[in-house]
Amino acid sequence: MKALITGGAGCIGSDLAAALLARGQQVTVFDNLSSGKIEHITPLRDSPDFRFVEGDLLDSDHLEAVIQHQEIVYHLAANPDVKFSPGDATDKDLKQNTLATYNVLEGMRMHGVKKLAFASTSAIYGISDKQPIPEDLSPRPISLYGATKLGCESLISAFQHLFDMQCWIFRFANIVGEKVRKKGRTVISDFIYKLQENPRRLEILGNGKQAKSYLLSSECVDAMVHIVSHASAGMNVYNLGCADSLPVDRIAQMVVEAMGLKNVEYSYSGGQAGWPGDVPRFRLDVTALERLGWQARNNSEQAVSQAIQAILKNTLVCRQ
Amino acid sequence: MKALITGGAGCIGSDLAAALLARGQQVTVFDNLSSGKIEHITPLRDSPDFRFVEGDLLDSDHLEAVIQHQEIVYHLAANPDVKFSPGDATDKDLKQNTLATYNVLEGMRMHGVKKLAFASTSAIYGISDKQPIPEDLSPRPISLYGATKLGCESLISAFQHLFDMQCWIFRFANIVGEKVRKKGRTVISDFIYKLQENPRRLEILGNGKQAKSYLLSSECVDAMVHIVSHASAGMNVYNLGCADSLPVDRIAQMVVEAMGLKNVEYSYSGGQAGWPGDVPRFRLDVTALERLGWQARNNSEQAVSQAIQAILKNTLVCRQ
Repeated sequence: MKALITGGAGCIGSDLAAALLARGQQVTVFDNLSSGKIEHITPLRDSPDFRFVEGDLLDSDHLEAVIQHQEIVYHLAANPDVKFSPGDATDKDLKQNTLATYNVLEGMRMHGVKKLAFASTSAIYGISDKQPIPEDLSPRPISLYGATKLGCESLISAFQHLFDMQCWIFRFANIVGEKVRKKGRTVISDFIYKLQENPRRLEILGNGKQAKSYLLSSECVDAMVHIVSHASAGMNVYNLGCADSLPVDRIAQMVVEAMGLKNVEYSYSGGQAGWPGDVPRFRLDVTALERLGWQARNNSEQAVSQAIQAILKNTLVCRQ
Repeated sequence: MKALITGGAGCIGSDLAAALLARGQQVTVFDNLSSGKIEHITPLRDSPDFRFVEGDLLDSDHLEAVIQHQEIVYHLAANPDVKFSPGDATDKDLKQNTLATYNVLEGMRMHGVKKLAFASTSAIYGISDKQPIPEDLSPRPISLYGATKLGCESLISAFQHLFDMQCWIFRFANIVGEKVRKKGRTVISDFIYKLQENPRRLEILGNGKQAKSYLLSSECVDAMVHIVSHASAGMNVYNLGCADSLPVDRIAQMVVEAMGLKNVEYSYSGGQAGWPGDVPRFRLDVTALERLGWQARNNSEQAVSQAIQAILKNTLVCRQ
C-alpha cells in the first residue's frame, strides 16, 4: 500500500508513519514543517520505503504532484493551535483546515485516489448536555478550529458520495505523547514550561475544573490503523479516545509530582473555559470503536501520566 | 432597524426586502447579480429606505464598507445551483458559500454588527432514515452545496460563541414562487422550459419518485421575519418548510395540466436521484417552528401549484 501522510512530521503523523512502515507500507510524508519537526521523522529516513516532501497543502500544484500514484491519504495536517486569542487572524483555521482539506480532496479526485483517512476532532461537538458524546450527536462547534474541522468533514462527506471514495473520519480526544510540537502548547507542555520557568508558582487556565478525555499518540495510531482495516463502509466516522475524562487540576498535580516539586502555589486565570472556544468538559462515547474490536489500554490518567514522564525525560536529555 | 440583505436581488431576497421595507426598516441589498435580477428589486427602488449596492461577497473590502452601520445582516447570497454536473468546478460552492460567509462574519466582527440571519438548507442533512428530519439530526451532506452550507453553519456557530453574536439559521425546504432565477433551474421552471420547447415530451430527472418538501417564497419570508423576532437564544436553528412532501411525478402532471397539454410522453433519466448529490426523498420536522407560533398556510402541493400558475402567467406576459 502506498500511503501519503499530510502533517507526517507532526507528533501523531510521525508515529503513524513509523507504524505504517513497520507494516510494510510505502510512506510519503508531506509537511510544511510549520509545526512538525524534522527530528520527528529523522529515525525513519533510513528506510527505502520512506520519503519526505517539504510542502504546503495550500500549494495545490505541488500537492497534486505528490498525491498521484498514492493509494491512500492520511490527512493529519492542520492548524495545530486550537486556542484562539484576541488579535489572532480569524481565517487561519479556515485556510489550514477547510481549504487545505479541499485541496487534498480535489487532488485525490483528479488522480483517482479513492481512500482518505482524516484526523478530525471532538471539538466539532461543542458544549453538550449529553455525555459521553456519541458520534451521531448534532455538532455545534464553538471554536474556529472545531468549526473548520466540521467544514472538512462536510466536504469529505460530499466528495465520498459524489466521487465514490472510501473515507474514515477520526474524532480525536486530546492526544498526548512524548513528542512536543514546535507551535501550540498542550496542557502538559504548558505546565512543564511554566514550572521550569518558575517552580514555585503555576497559573492554570480557567478554573481547573475542565475535564477532558486523553489518549496516547501510540494508541491513537493503533486505533487509526485498526479502523482503516476493519471499517468497510463508504463513510466511517469514529470517536477515537477512551471513555473517561481527567480534570485539569489533577494534571497540574501530576506534573508537579513528576517534577519533584513541593509547595507550588496554584493560581487560576478564571472562568469555566481555559480560553475562548474551549469546551470545558467532555467524555467520548467509544462504543462504536469497541464494537469494531479496539479498546484503549490506558485510561486518561494513565495516558497523561506516561506523556508527562516521557516529555520530562526528553526535556532533561535535551538540556544536558 | 438597518438591515443588509446579501443576495437581495434574488427570488427570496427581493421578497424579504419588500417585507422588511413594509415593516418600516431601512434595507440595503448587496448582490452581484450573478443569479439575482435587477427587475426583482425595481419595484423597491422608489422607497427612500431602500438602497442597492452591486457587489461581490468575495470582495471583502467592499463588503466591509457596506456592513458597517448595519444592525442586522440577512445573508441569503449563495451559489444558486444546487446541482453538480461532471465537469463543473468543485470549489464553486466552497467559494460562494463558505468563503463568502466567512467574509460576512468577519466584516460583522470588525464593525460590531451582532445579528445574523442565515439561509441554510435542508440539503445539509443528506440521506436520512429518520423522517421527518428534526433539527438535531447529525448532518451528513452528499452534495457540495449542502457540505459548504454546513461549513457556513459551523463558522456561524463559532463566531456566535466567540464574538457574542445572535444568529438565526434557517434550513430551507425547496422554496418556490413566481420569480425565476437567472441561473439554476428549479424542478418547476425545468418542466415549463422543456414543455415550452417540446409540448409532446417531458424528460424527468431520476425515476420521478423523488419527493421533497416545498414552501412558497412569500411564506418563507414571513417565517424568517417571525423567527428573528420571536427566537431569542444566542443561536437559533430552525427547519423552515411544511411537514409534507410532494413527488416529482405529481409536479410534472401539475405542470402539464396547468399548461393545458395532453398526451405528453414522459421519459426518465433514471436512478433514484435527479442528479449527483440529490437527496431523493425528505420531509422536515417543523414542530420547533410551530412551537414558536408559525405554521405554513399552504402545503407542498398548494405551494407548487401556486408557483406554477404564477410562473406561467409571468412567462406568458414576457412573451407577449
